[in-house]
Amino acid sequence: MLTGRRLVFIGGDARQLEVIAQTTELDASAMLIGFEELNRRFTDTALVPLSPEVFAEADALVLPVAGMDDDGRVDTQFSSDGHVFLAEEHFAAMREGAFVFTGIARSRLETFTEKYKLNLVKLMELDEVAILNSIPTAEGAIALAMEHTDITIHGARTLVLGFGRCGITLARTLGALGAQVRVAARQPADLARIREMGMTPVPLQRLASEVGDVDMVFNTVPALILTASVLSRMSKDCVIIDIASKPGGTDFRYAERRGMTALLAPSLPGLVAPKTAGRIIADSITRILAQT
Amino acid sequence: MLTGRRLVFIGGDARQLEVIAQTTELDASAMLIGFEELNRRFTDTALVPLSPEVFAEADALVLPVAGMDDDGRVDTQFSSDGHVFLAEEHFAAMREGAFVFTGIARSRLETFTEKYKLNLVKLMELDEVAILNSIPTAEGAIALAMEHTDITIHGARTLVLGFGRCGITLARTLGALGAQVRVAARQPADLARIREMGMTPVPLQRLASEVGDVDMVFNTVPALILTASVLSRMSKDCVIIDIASKPGGTDFRYAERRGMTALLAPSLPGLVAPKTAGRIIADSITRILAQT
Repeated sequence: MLTGRRLVFIGGDARQLEVIAQTTELDASAMLIGFEELNRRFTDTALVPLSPEVFAEADALVLPVAGMDDDGRVDTQFSSDGHVFLAEEHFAAMREGAFVFTGIARSRLETFTEKYKLNLVKLMELDEVAILNSIPTAEGAIALAMEHTDITIHGARTLVLGFGRCGITLARTLGALGAQVRVAARQPADLARIREMGMTPVPLQRLASEVGDVDMVFNTVPALILTASVLSRMSKDCVIIDIASKPGGTDFRYAERRGMTALLAPSLPGLVAPKTAGRIIADSITRILAQT
Repeated sequence: MLTGRRLVFIGGDARQLEVIAQTTELDASAMLIGFEELNRRFTDTALVPLSPEVFAEADALVLPVAGMDDDGRVDTQFSSDGHVFLAEEHFAAMREGAFVFTGIARSRLETFTEKYKLNLVKLMELDEVAILNSIPTAEGAIALAMEHTDITIHGARTLVLGFGRCGITLARTLGALGAQVRVAARQPADLARIREMGMTPVPLQRLASEVGDVDMVFNTVPALILTASVLSRMSKDCVIIDIASKPGGTDFRYAERRGMTALLAPSLPGLVAPKTAGRIIADSITRILAQT
């Protein structure tokens, strides 16, 4: 339970509403900034102005997944101007040790939280969040592949690049759907695990020789892996879904020149399953607050 | 191999191209009617006029999945007017025992093939086709569910109505994606198999009491099952994907009145995976012709 905890929420998207719903359900109080056009109602929740007094009372500040820009801007879907600007005075007003939850943190947010001894939690860097977020990511990537191919996932020759938190989930899910799954990784231990899972391991250095007959490639590696040289060995009908952070791991210019379908699709959880993605964040915030 | 076989193809969509590709690859000759705007080339294939002489030489006539209307109309995506009209003289010209392949058959096609002792094969009624078609159907239905919900399939409370060729595939696929799967069926043997597969069986007569907490319903039964009375017990957020033949098994009027998302989505294979759907048809046509 979060009885007596006072949380200040600044902007966000549909995910933030799940966090508000779950934390207030657990008896926290919520103060909302940048939610003037919100049409959903929550228990023990008030719209409040952007003033240092509100921050002074907070046990935790909850920013959206994208956090705060280096000019202090926080985006919100729930007010007509679409953003709120935070200044140093807001962080200065918070009590030492209070939490600041964000998805990712840019340098200004890091600086302010350090300066005022606030407890910054970068949710997207927590394994527990990243692993669960890999589920909507994998489902969204597979939905894109379904949409952009004229074959089924079942029976398709698929290749997953990378065997991290998203790569594992993608490979397992594709296998569960009946696809033939190859997974490219660098580490011998990963290649062994891929084989144990009944999939075909591909050492990354041999990638170019293993792509000739592939129907769909899913890239999770945030480095240029699908170079022009690799792309030139692939079938022109092969569809590439690149879910690595921008700019992805594909030479998109060359893919387009060759007439291939290559899509950069980072940040899928908030797009394909905002409610699930919000619950994942809410669970972690709740766990962290309940422990302290 | 289909060496020496002469096949006449009349119209169709992307699926028909896969059938032409596969049969000519196996050494059959193809004569195409209603393909004036085709821009793909195949071995040993000629565009021919609609004349009884062409039919007289055919070992098999291959109609599109939708077959021929009762006014003789056959739809085609590959000519500018979009259709071809077949007359009795075309069937009369065919040699006795020749094959006529179609997806489904309306009465005029049944009459002509019977009168001229032609071998009518209704592909969509073959179990081997229907079972394999259930794969693109299930993938298409799940892609629709992903698109129209804000949660993941993983962890969702799903309900499949019917445990026939599509119901089995849908239930298994949802389970593989990590959903909680309930399946409603009437027969005790089906309910036993559902339990064996690790899912929750729901006797159809108890349906109304088992829908209260469901996130997604997939209907495969071509009869009114999701009545107003059942819908009224469901959460308004529940999304219904109805893949039964038109008019489906849902009271769509009442679902709309209640503000629920309910989609009628029959004939998914040709939409979501025309190449796979074409290969399924080609495999059956090839098998049947090769046996004779």
